[in-house]
Amino acid sequence: MPDLIHIERFDNGLVLLGEPMDHVSSVSLTVRVPVGPIYDPSGMEGAAAVGAEWWLRGAGDRDTRQLNDALDSLGCRHVEAAGANFITFSAGQVHQRLDDVLRLYHDILLAPRLDDEAFDPCRNLIVQDLLSLDDHPAQKVNVLCRQRFFPHPLGRYHLGTAESLEAMTADAVRDHLLGHFCPDGTIIAVAGKIDWPQVRDRIEQHLGDWPARPQAEIDTQPATGGFEHVRKDTAQTHLALAQPSVTMTDGHYYAARVAVCVLSGGMSSRLMTEVREKRGLVYRVSTAYGGLKSCAGWFTYAGAVPEKARETLEVVVGELRRLGEGIEPDELARAKTQLKSATLMSLDMTGSRAARMVNDFHYLERVRTIDEITAAVDAITIDDVLAYLQAYRAGDFVGVVIGPEPVPLAVFEA
Amino acid sequence: MPDLIHIERFDNGLVLLGEPMDHVSSVSLTVRVPVGPIYDPSGMEGAAAVGAEWWLRGAGDRDTRQLNDALDSLGCRHVEAAGANFITFSAGQVHQRLDDVLRLYHDILLAPRLDDEAFDPCRNLIVQDLLSLDDHPAQKVNVLCRQRFFPHPLGRYHLGTAESLEAMTADAVRDHLLGHFCPDGTIIAVAGKIDWPQVRDRIEQHLGDWPARPQAEIDTQPATGGFEHVRKDTAQTHLALAQPSVTMTDGHYYAARVAVCVLSGGMSSRLMTEVREKRGLVYRVSTAYGGLKSCAGWFTYAGAVPEKARETLEVVVGELRRLGEGIEPDELARAKTQLKSATLMSLDMTGSRAARMVNDFHYLERVRTIDEITAAVDAITIDDVLAYLQAYRAGDFVGVVIGPEPVPLAVFEA
Repeated sequence: MPDLIHIERFDNGLVLLGEPMDHVSSVSLTVRVPVGPIYDPSGMEGAAAVGAEWWLRGAGDRDTRQLNDALDSLGCRHVEAAGANFITFSAGQVHQRLDDVLRLYHDILLAPRLDDEAFDPCRNLIVQDLLSLDDHPAQKVNVLCRQRFFPHPLGRYHLGTAESLEAMTADAVRDHLLGHFCPDGTIIAVAGKIDWPQVRDRIEQHLGDWPARPQAEIDTQPATGGFEHVRKDTAQTHLALAQPSVTMTDGHYYAARVAVCVLSGGMSSRLMTEVREKRGLVYRVSTAYGGLKSCAGWFTYAGAVPEKARETLEVVVGELRRLGEGIEPDELARAKTQLKSATLMSLDMTGSRAARMVNDFHYLERVRTIDEITAAVDAITIDDVLAYLQAYRAGDFVGVVIGPEPVPLAVFEA
Repeated sequence: MPDLIHIERFDNGLVLLGEPMDHVSSVSLTVRVPVGPIYDPSGMEGAAAVGAEWWLRGAGDRDTRQLNDALDSLGCRHVEAAGANFITFSAGQVHQRLDDVLRLYHDILLAPRLDDEAFDPCRNLIVQDLLSLDDHPAQKVNVLCRQRFFPHPLGRYHLGTAESLEAMTADAVRDHLLGHFCPDGTIIAVAGKIDWPQVRDRIEQHLGDWPARPQAEIDTQPATGGFEHVRKDTAQTHLALAQPSVTMTDGHYYAARVAVCVLSGGMSSRLMTEVREKRGLVYRVSTAYGGLKSCAGWFTYAGAVPEKARETLEVVVGELRRLGEGIEPDELARAKTQLKSATLMSLDMTGSRAARMVNDFHYLERVRTIDEITAAVDAITIDDVLAYLQAYRAGDFVGVVIGPEPVPLAVFEA
């Protein structure tokens, strides 16, 4: 299936990406507006998350109930989420309904009601969601680790804090969100059974007169870094480690992705073999690449019984370091196969295609073809991977532990 | 996209289901063998879960490392899981690799090593996974609720107990699993870019001489039922309720599915409107249909701050009961659209198609066409839904609460 990706940039800065897939029955729509949590004003952390709830509480002529009814009547499965740079609106539907859904999204994007009386219920939901993180230590440890690892405010947790949520007012959140909600920096992707010229015309008709305004800038501050133990009477000790990596525009990018796969890319990967299979130390252990536009990292998680937490950490850190000492040709080959096959298989889903296009455009201002990705992965040599690992030595760790007893994370500092 | 589903039953009882999808690049393979947790001998609960780990620890000529390497080299993303009746082997790969993957699965299914020395690491992993449930109260409350709701051993938690895992031996688990591992009752589904005659021939060649033996029977005992409060110092109070529903062979089946959608099928559904949108009581609340072959239920979950747990429960139970009092025509229409559109959209994924075929065959001994499902949903009237709700009144609840304070669940008993 050759990929044919259409790109249209409208006069107001709005970017539309389209990928026709003739032989599916659905269409995925993704709209990313650059008013995400990293833009939340200081003291109003969580504003974008509240906004993502609030935004669907009535639009145009429809109140909340009527808008929900209209979307559900079209069989539209929609999700709104705040994360990093964006509030993301995602909608999946059978292709016959796309036109009607786009009409509704015109109102949602350009004429949200954001009524005062809907604000408190939305804020309450985010307070609840924030609270539930305390009952998910495996998730919380990663949230805390990202907060320490990324420069402020890039690693900010999107739900804010109990204090910031309590302090914010409907007026302040509305002013902030509407002040940043703009077509410049907004990326829309449509993947599935579409007629591209028709989709382009519809989007132009609905969103072409969205008034342009300059996209907001972000000042970043140095990361907190360091190590933290959160004492909690959990059944497992949850360990999270982060270390610097390269962004998608970096020459080392594909080498970094291949290296992560050698470490954690399948059942034959080093972490699975050494931590899970040989020693049976933990059920879940993984290292994943996580990138933003300006910085990126490798994020490692493991959950172990408290009495095996230290051994687990030693083995994991040992493997992170050993990677730089050499890689076997068959490990490289398997890692490349894994990476390419994951990419190829994700193409069978409209939602993955839409997300892939939006991500690529955000990071690169263009969309890579599958041939380009495949060729770039194929070209990586062991020397490329080792050169990357030389430049980004394991050792500059940030770490968080949640569990009943501390684990001496700092021992493993460079 | 018309669905063309091939069914082949081999002499040894093995059933193969195939669905060609010409315009995708991947193939999903699902193999379900009837040796799941419900067959675990008393005192050996968790044997199937340990088995699902153990089964990939070497097969035929390959030891664990060689088998993992071989699968990873083919870009095969595989998962093994134990649940209810089955151990399920799932594998996704680009279509060019299917032949090689099937060759490996011949060894995995018919010549697993199940070596003594691999047993303890596998058991340790399941012990770890079981332990981690204590750090996931939102999941645990549903596990406990299903255990009380279904007749024994159908609601059994697949990971067993600390005691049963500790007590089991490699010999006993191997004898049990190999004694039940048989082609009769095993269902294989292949969906994606396939040449059906070739896939059928390959499966026949690899698995046609798998010796037949009668499938094991299960004696069920009455469910525990009732209510339970697990005191735990969680941030939220986690509530789970279950009530009886109908299986897929029942005349009320589609009415039951539509009714659940009215209650919990989209943002305009009653639970979302009453609990989440109007009152902002909880971030997560849902009712889902969950069926086994011989029994089924509706399973409701909500997570609320402890001081709002009682109000949340009252509103949720109120909505479960109010459903039987009447449904509006537009609610019915939206619920039917939701159900049909979710079904249609899932068809774009090879993995969903394979899972759908296997489920249908397990429940019905045939695979429904999409036209059949769509027509059955379309035919449901308000009277059909009310007749179902009359026969299965909300009130016969089973319930579990995890949280710092008890919530008087029993108040809501019929």
